[in-house]
Amino acid sequence: MKKAVVLLSGGLDSAVALHLAKSEGFDVHAISFDYGQRHNKELNAAKQIAIKAGVVQHQIVTLKLDNWGGSSLTDNTMDIENGDVNRTDIPVTYVPARNMVFLSVAASLAEAIEAQDIYIGVSEVDYSGYVDCRQAFIDGMEKAINLGTVMGAEKNQPIKIRAPFVDMTKAEEIKLGVTLGVDFGLTWSCYRGEDKPCGTCDSCLLRAKAFADAGVIDNAL
Amino acid sequence: MKKAVVLLSGGLDSAVALHLAKSEGFDVHAISFDYGQRHNKELNAAKQIAIKAGVVQHQIVTLKLDNWGGSSLTDNTMDIENGDVNRTDIPVTYVPARNMVFLSVAASLAEAIEAQDIYIGVSEVDYSGYVDCRQAFIDGMEKAINLGTVMGAEKNQPIKIRAPFVDMTKAEEIKLGVTLGVDFGLTWSCYRGEDKPCGTCDSCLLRAKAFADAGVIDNAL
Repeated sequence: MKKAVVLLSGGLDSAVALHLAKSEGFDVHAISFDYGQRHNKELNAAKQIAIKAGVVQHQIVTLKLDNWGGSSLTDNTMDIENGDVNRTDIPVTYVPARNMVFLSVAASLAEAIEAQDIYIGVSEVDYSGYVDCRQAFIDGMEKAINLGTVMGAEKNQPIKIRAPFVDMTKAEEIKLGVTLGVDFGLTWSCYRGEDKPCGTCDSCLLRAKAFADAGVIDNAL
Repeated sequence: MKKAVVLLSGGLDSAVALHLAKSEGFDVHAISFDYGQRHNKELNAAKQIAIKAGVVQHQIVTLKLDNWGGSSLTDNTMDIENGDVNRTDIPVTYVPARNMVFLSVAASLAEAIEAQDIYIGVSEVDYSGYVDCRQAFIDGMEKAINLGTVMGAEKNQPIKIRAPFVDMTKAEEIKLGVTLGVDFGLTWSCYRGEDKPCGTCDSCLLRAKAFADAGVIDNAL
């Protein structure tokens, strides 16, 4: 069966991406990163999602980017801001070039297992100002991957980056997830790592608005 | 002073790249990777080179790619082959997409410190079949970096990947290194991690030939 590498953060988007890859006929090789997050809630969520979905393997790659900080997601000396869904600036939760790093490592795994498809659950619509969630970046990265791997550059087995939600709102993703049987109760979005989602950070606000827009109950709350 | 990120493996090429960056007026922020190498000889060499050259900082990033093997450089169950300098196939020492991963992480550091220059010591001439040592890949990766970082995509501070040796032979690099005052005795090239370079692996053979061609004594031996 054809293989896909799926970037699985443990959040809502990547959970839907994983189920979509399965529904599209792929054996899923999930990959998550321990990149110095402030808390393990997302990684634990990723493990549960992967097990429940029945993946072939779930790689958790240790990658410590926290040495150079720059983001409140990895730097414990910075506060998580309360959110504002109408913001247009770059939030302090930005980790420099994070999706580029993740896609590069995913490409390494793809080449190792000869998978020609990589799924990533980014969206331009709800992208919170992250430049590495845009289709233009995905296209550029796909070109770089096919120049820098044997599969792409020599074997005529190009690697495709699938970003199926890039033009979708999170509410549309949630509706799609419902049809795919995603258990949203397993997913974790909150930037803070308390027992329950805080309900006040950017990520919690976006998630609550999306579930409300979709008319779906969030069973993680 | 302007800042450059230099990918520093501890080998000969990156040592010359570091000294070239300094000679071109940059404050050097060196970055090395603990990616599950079979031995620590290269990383120890990188530390000594960085200290002696007087870098601003030397980041050693933990990144474990050894879980999916595929390379005798990280997979302890595979043998290192004896070398053949005339080979044209992809050697088993290939780590999938390694330079792409390294450049992505370097771009993350560059964005965190607002450096617009990244040095990488790759060469097409002596590239041993590695697709990610070619100028075409470097160009594609530079485009991806500028689409996926705030500096490149929004601040009009594009990041440049400098691969000054891409068209040079290793012998030419060595001659350049001599003029820059590189202490080749600190560098490590051997794929095997014994007390002394083995003299028989691909990397040792290429190095020996290059020093001979340059007419320079290798003071690492």
